Parts: sequence; structure tokens; C-alpha cells
Amino acid sequence: MFKKNIFALALATLFGSSSVCAVENVDLLIKNATVLTMNDEKTIFQHGLVAIDGNHIVAVSDGSNLSQYSADKTIDADGDIVMPGLINSHTHVSMTVFRSLADDVPDRLHRYIFPLEKKMVSRDMVRIGAQLGNVEMVKGGVTTYGDMYYFEDEVAKTVDKIGMRAVLGETVIKFPVADAANADEGIQYAVDFIKQWKGHPRITPAFAPHAPYTNTTNALKKVTQLSEKYDVPVLIHLAESHRENEVIAKRSHGKTPVGYMEEIGALTPRLVGAHMINVNDEDITLLKKRGVGIAHNMSANIKSAKGVSPALKMFDNGLRIGLGTDGPMSGNTLSTIDEFNQVAKVHKLVNKDRGAMPPIKVIEMATMGAARALHMEDKIGSLEVGKLADVIIVDTKSPNMTPVYNPYSALVYSAYASNVKHTIVDGRILMKDRKMLTVDEASIRDEALAFAAKVRKTVIDSGEVVR
Amino acid sequence: MFKKNIFALALATLFGSSSVCAVENVDLLIKNATVLTMNDEKTIFQHGLVAIDGNHIVAVSDGSNLSQYSADKTIDADGDIVMPGLINSHTHVSMTVFRSLADDVPDRLHRYIFPLEKKMVSRDMVRIGAQLGNVEMVKGGVTTYGDMYYFEDEVAKTVDKIGMRAVLGETVIKFPVADAANADEGIQYAVDFIKQWKGHPRITPAFAPHAPYTNTTNALKKVTQLSEKYDVPVLIHLAESHRENEVIAKRSHGKTPVGYMEEIGALTPRLVGAHMINVNDEDITLLKKRGVGIAHNMSANIKSAKGVSPALKMFDNGLRIGLGTDGPMSGNTLSTIDEFNQVAKVHKLVNKDRGAMPPIKVIEMATMGAARALHMEDKIGSLEVGKLADVIIVDTKSPNMTPVYNPYSALVYSAYASNVKHTIVDGRILMKDRKMLTVDEASIRDEALAFAAKVRKTVIDSGEVVR
Ligand SMILES: [Zn+2]
Ligand SMILES: [Zn+2]
Repeated sequence: MFKKNIFALALATLFGSSSVCAVENVDLLIKNATVLTMNDEKTIFQHGLVAIDGNHIVAVSDGSNLSQYSADKTIDADGDIVMPGLINSHTHVSMTVFRSLADDVPDRLHRYIFPLEKKMVSRDMVRIGAQLGNVEMVKGGVTTYGDMYYFEDEVAKTVDKIGMRAVLGETVIKFPVADAANADEGIQYAVDFIKQWKGHPRITPAFAPHAPYTNTTNALKKVTQLSEKYDVPVLIHLAESHRENEVIAKRSHGKTPVGYMEEIGALTPRLVGAHMINVNDEDITLLKKRGVGIAHNMSANIKSAKGVSPALKMFDNGLRIGLGTDGPMSGNTLSTIDEFNQVAKVHKLVNKDRGAMPPIKVIEMATMGAARALHMEDKIGSLEVGKLADVIIVDTKSPNMTPVYNPYSALVYSAYASNVKHTIVDGRILMKDRKMLTVDEASIRDEALAFAAKVRKTVIDSGEVVR
Repeated sequence: MFKKNIFALALATLFGSSSVCAVENVDLLIKNATVLTMNDEKTIFQHGLVAIDGNHIVAVSDGSNLSQYSADKTIDADGDIVMPGLINSHTHVSMTVFRSLADDVPDRLHRYIFPLEKKMVSRDMVRIGAQLGNVEMVKGGVTTYGDMYYFEDEVAKTVDKIGMRAVLGETVIKFPVADAANADEGIQYAVDFIKQWKGHPRITPAFAPHAPYTNTTNALKKVTQLSEKYDVPVLIHLAESHRENEVIAKRSHGKTPVGYMEEIGALTPRLVGAHMINVNDEDITLLKKRGVGIAHNMSANIKSAKGVSPALKMFDNGLRIGLGTDGPMSGNTLSTIDEFNQVAKVHKLVNKDRGAMPPIKVIEMATMGAARALHMEDKIGSLEVGKLADVIIVDTKSPNMTPVYNPYSALVYSAYASNVKHTIVDGRILMKDRKMLTVDEASIRDEALAFAAKVRKTVIDSGEVVR
């Protein structure tokens, strides 16, 4: 379909676009849309169109050339907002089955989550939780996500099936976990997973060392080396807590977590660091220089009272930073739409400036910013000719979205994830009018509820994992 | 219907509840529900029931006595959450028609909003905006709200029609505004409005002096006096900005806004103050002593970077404090569900403690807390026998609400306003399965869009009110 488009472009060049009368047939045409392109100029088209052929975008315009296209399928957006699919740069999708457990327990990771996971994580759990989380994301407009967990091959199968796009990182951690007895076994699991899934058109397998403080220097170096060998990303939690700062400072003669990663050669353009709360100006310079991707998880970071990442500063300094939700025991929900309000407002609050975080920046962090964080900005993140066709349509008819003087404001300050009406990934409609088309939502929910009953029986009613 | 219930109770006392075989007929029965009563003990019933007769709640139980009731209408909640209707203690409902305008303009009230209102506020605007906001609130689970605006009699008519409950304050302000040339005319307008609507079963008319700094001491004293004479509430913006602190300190030999209100005799149990950001410990003691109601509007306060109210401290000290959204140019949406996440997390953040604001406190501030703020805790705010039947049912089937280990957590960290499935006010179903039953949503939306087109033409395209 690229050739067709180049041909049309050639015609347009020869005769001027108004004289092109060849009708181009495309697979999917979205018309009558308020198109937020999120291109460099932040072009907005009223009554615009987006044409999709195969899995690519072949036209984005103000709609004046509508008659130039015929389409197998047409969506009349009726003035609704059409924008790039959201990119959730950091989550643990399978943890949906643990959502609303122990939200406010202090020192929760070590006292609650690790013991819970030791007891409950299995291939089944990973698959069941991922299925539910995928549905939640598609229904909330997320088309691509970055994930870190165990049995990541199970997550991959669910992503393949539902038709989403994802960067999936297999966990490496020094403790015994459900799918590995130690970091070496974790690395081996990751290598096998990477070999198995590398080359999938929508899935990028990756390494996911849990964090610097839960891994040895040796393991981190080995992962870095192997990520080069296999040409895959490395996802990690970085600069998240004061405790981490202390542990790493002790290990590295006073370095910050970012400084330590630089020292051991692990700060590479393949790295995607989640949280990045405790970073200083020197760290920021390093992160920029190395082209590190950053996942900003506001909701999780303030829920845990860990603090506010200088995300705005990093964004304004041109770093690769985008929004993420973190896992559903942390941010609780999986659409980055649920982050918008908090991201905008908390940065205003801490900067004591109502103009500090205008909605357009939040939307950029949700789209192109997150694409840059995952090093995928050439392929996704904006509605531009040649990019992959990951597109969402957001309803503007519900009362909370009425009226729309400014679409960025409406999205950031008013939209619910449930206002997403249609979700398209790789040119394929995954959700239409809130109905899932590629998976059976009811049976996925039933499996999740059955697993939740098991969790209740195993760790809650028994009191084995205390709250 | 009270008598019937007392009779049943007497029977139950005589024979023990299991031997009561008299079947009681009620108007509406909700069964198979996860009932959050929000009573003093915070009782939760699994598989519970709520029975409504006329406009009152006549039974709330664990469901074991289900067979005791027959009902004209029955709602099978199928495990969903049934809870008291939400109470939005502070808004300006009619401003929905200005939503997403100028969200980030500095010094916005004086530079943007007042000029915009001078140009655009009219009886029509107030009616059209209120209609839209009412629908948004009912669809978001709000059953009662506190409002401050102009032409408040128009708001009253819309509340009467849709069937909600409200405390409606007519604005008193020293500048010329759409419905009064000065404070005296505003007071006269308010008195006429109060006389007209006093005694309505669901509407409480009130005075609404805009703020201490936008009114003279004289006007505030006069309003206080008249509020006693007519036995009505006084709604006001109080302790909201540093500018206000300065103006009031100058006027009152260094007093805080709260201290000033006390000095002039305006700090009464009829008062409901919105925002209360800049209050010190002495102010808090005074507010408690005088029984002042407080509307906590987190979302608006951090969006404007004004700061965080010590709302948690006031709540923990037993003050009358509940959630509010502020108007749709400030908080942007009108369901307090949209406040939950921000209220929980920002108080955790500023207190540097993940346990500082557990979800149950947020839900109490949304229900009983807001009822206390509006001085209506005897009538609404919990599901208890004898209270008015304001009840909502929140869907737990959508992926973001799956699973529910802890219903308070699920509501605070995961729920969207759009997860509200049914809304009941005064025993009457206003929304069923997301469909409005008492008004025509489509025509209300059309009127709002037509008015928005007028706003665009008058003040945006013309550039008359600059952004
Ligand atoms: Zn994480
Ligand atoms: Zn207000």
C-alpha cells in the first residue's frame, strides 16, 4: 500500500492535488474527525480524515480530499477526537488479579507483594491477569505497552491474540521467584523468551532486571551485554525510592542509581527506566546523553508517597519521557488517561504555577513522549503518513466531554478512559463502540474472578499474607 | 411507610426475625448488593438489600430477610456496590458551558472569568448549563449538590425537574453582575429567591456571598442576619488564595479570612466555606467550634496551583468536611468520583505517608462528610433506616473494577464516574442502566452545544475575551 500512496503523491505533484481524480482504495477510512496528529507542529484538523491501508497510515488531512478515497470500512467520527493510540510505557499487566489488595500497607513491596507473588504467581496467573489487563487497556485507548513480569512468554501470547503492540520484559532478580531460582536462571529464561519472540511484527521481547538494588552489578552487566547481542531493550525500575539510593550509594562509593548505572556501562540507549523520582541535574544530563527512555508513573508515585519525579524538567530538556501507569497494585488502572489529570495538576502544584503543565504537554507525554521512551518514535506515537496505524477515537458526546473548546484540555481534565469509543492497532479494529472484537471479554472476566477467588482462599482468608 | 416498618420491627422484636412471616410491600427493593452503608460502624453487607418506600429507606440488611419483602420494582444488583448517593458540596453547575476554556490562564478569575461572565451570563445560560451539569452529576452518581451562581432560580427549576437534591446559593458580590448591579441588589435577588423556593422538599435556597474579599463587611453582616431570619445556609468561598489573605489582613488588622469572619459574626453553623486552603490551627479550632461546613475541592485547588487544604487534618479533628468539585472551569468535571484519586494521593504525597489517606476516609468525605458540610447529615449521607432514599449502584463488571477485594479501594483508585449504573434520589430512579429517565439528555446536549457556538462567536472568534 505504500506504493499506491507514492503513486498518488507523484500524481499530486505532477498535476496539483486538486486535479488528482484517481480514487484510491484503502482498507479503513476515518472521516469527519477532530484529528490531533501529535506531529511536530501539533497540527489539528477539524472535519479531518485518517486513511489506513494494511497496517500503515496512508493519509492524514483536513478532509478536503475526502472524495479521493474509497474504503472497505469507513468510520464516521462525527466530530469526535481521533488521536494516536496511547502508549503505556510501564506496567505489570498480569497483576490485575491482585488489584485493590493491600493498597496502603507500608513497605509494601517487601512485606506484602513479594510474599504474595511467591505464593500466587504461575503461568496461569500471568496469562489470566494479562488477558484482563489487555482488555482494560484496549478499552482505555492503550495500543502499546511496556511490561515487566514473570512468565513473560504468557503475556506475549495474550498480546499476540488480542492484537496489541507491546515491549515485554522478562524479569531478572536475585531472589528465587516463580519462574527462576536466581538471576542466572532469570537471564536464561529471558534469552529463551527473546529467541522465541524476536521478529514478531507487534511484540518486542526484552530483558527486565527488576531494579539495581534487587540485582548484582554482575547480573546488570551481563544483561547489558546480552541486550546488545540480541538487540533488544532493557526495562528496569530506576531511582524510585530513598532506600534504593542508600543501597546503591553503599555499593558504589556514593553514586546515585543513575550514576551507578553509568559507571557499570548499563546506561544505554536500549534502557527504559521507570519512575526516575530521585534524579539530580547531573543524572538528567547523563540520561539525555545516553538516550535513555523514561517512564513517568505519577499516579503510582504519589499513591505510595514516594514523591514527584522531575518529569516536567526532563520533558522540557528534551529527554525521552512518556507516561506509564505502573502495575495495577500501584497505579490501579491501566489506561494512561487515568494519569492525565494527576500528571497535569501535581506538576502545577509542585511548581506552584498553573501554567507549568499545559494539557498539550500531557498529551505529548502520552503519545510521542512514550513512543520515544520505548525507542519506537519512528513507528508509533503520532498520526503521520508512513507510521503504523495505531489510532483511537474518543467520544465527545458524553456530558463530561461537552463542550470541547480545547481538545487537549477536554482530554486531560475531563475524559474518562471509558470515553474511548474505538481502538485500532496495526490497522485492525480491536474495539468498536466499546465492544471487544478480537477476544471474549466475558470469559476473560470469568477467569479473572475465578483466580481472585483462589487468591482470597489462599492468602486472604487464611491470613497467610497479612495486610 | 414509617409506620409499616415500625410494625415489622415490633413483630421482629416479639417473635424474633426468623419467625416474622408478614410480607412487607415496598416501592423499590435493591437486592444481592455489596452494600456500603457508611453508617458509624461502616457496616458492609455482602449479598445485602436496601428497601425503599416512598422517599425513605425502610430497611438495610445482610439480605437474610429478603423474603420478608415484596416490591413494586426490584433491582438485582448482582454483587455490584450499593452506596449512599454522592454529595458534591461545592460547584457552579451552570459553568459547564464554559468548560475547557482558558484552563491555564494566570490570575484567571479577574482577567478571564469575570469578563467572560459579564458578556455571557444570562437566564438562558444558567438554565442550559445547569441542565447539562445535572445530567453529568446524575450519571456520575451525585444525588445532592451545593451550588453558587447567578439567576439561581433557574438552577432551582432544573433541579426540580430532574429530581435531584440541592442547596442553591444566589450570589452576592460587590461588582455589577448579570443579575444585580451591586451587593444590595444581589441580596434582594437572594431574598426573593429564598422566599420563592423555601419549603421545597428537595431544594434548599441559600445566600452565596462570593467571598470575603469580593464583598464588604457590611454586606457580609447583612447576609448573616438575613440567613438567620430566613433560616437558610450561607455558601461562600473562604481562605482560597494568598491574595485574599492579604486583602482581608489589610481590612481587619492582620486577621486571617476565617478570623475576620468570626470577628464580624459571620462564622455560624449556617456557613459552608469552599476551599479553606489557607487556614491555620487557630482557624481550625474556630471552624469546629462554630460548626462551619467545609467543601474540599482538591482537583480545582491543585489545578490552579493554589495549594493543598489541610483537609485531612480537619477531617481527623472531626470538622464538617466533605468533597466538592468546584465549577467545571475549575475542577472540570462534576462527579466527586473524579476527585477520589486526587484526594487520596495528594494527601499521601504532602504527608509523605502512604497510609495517610486510606480509601475509607475518602468515601466518608464523599458521603457523610459532605452531608455534614451541608448540615444535612440527619437526612442523607448514609444508607440507614429513616434516611432519605438517595442511593447509587456502581458497576463492578468493567475491567477497571475487576476484581474487588476491597470496595473502598476499588472506588477510590479504580472507579470512573461512568461506572455508576443506576442513580436514585428521593426514592425515584433518575438514571437506570446509564439512561436518564426524567430528562431528555440529547436535547439538553443540543442546547449546550448551541450555546457553546454562541460563546465561540461572541468571545473567542472575536478575541474580545483574550486567552
Ligand atoms: Zn513497576
Ligand atoms: Zn467555587
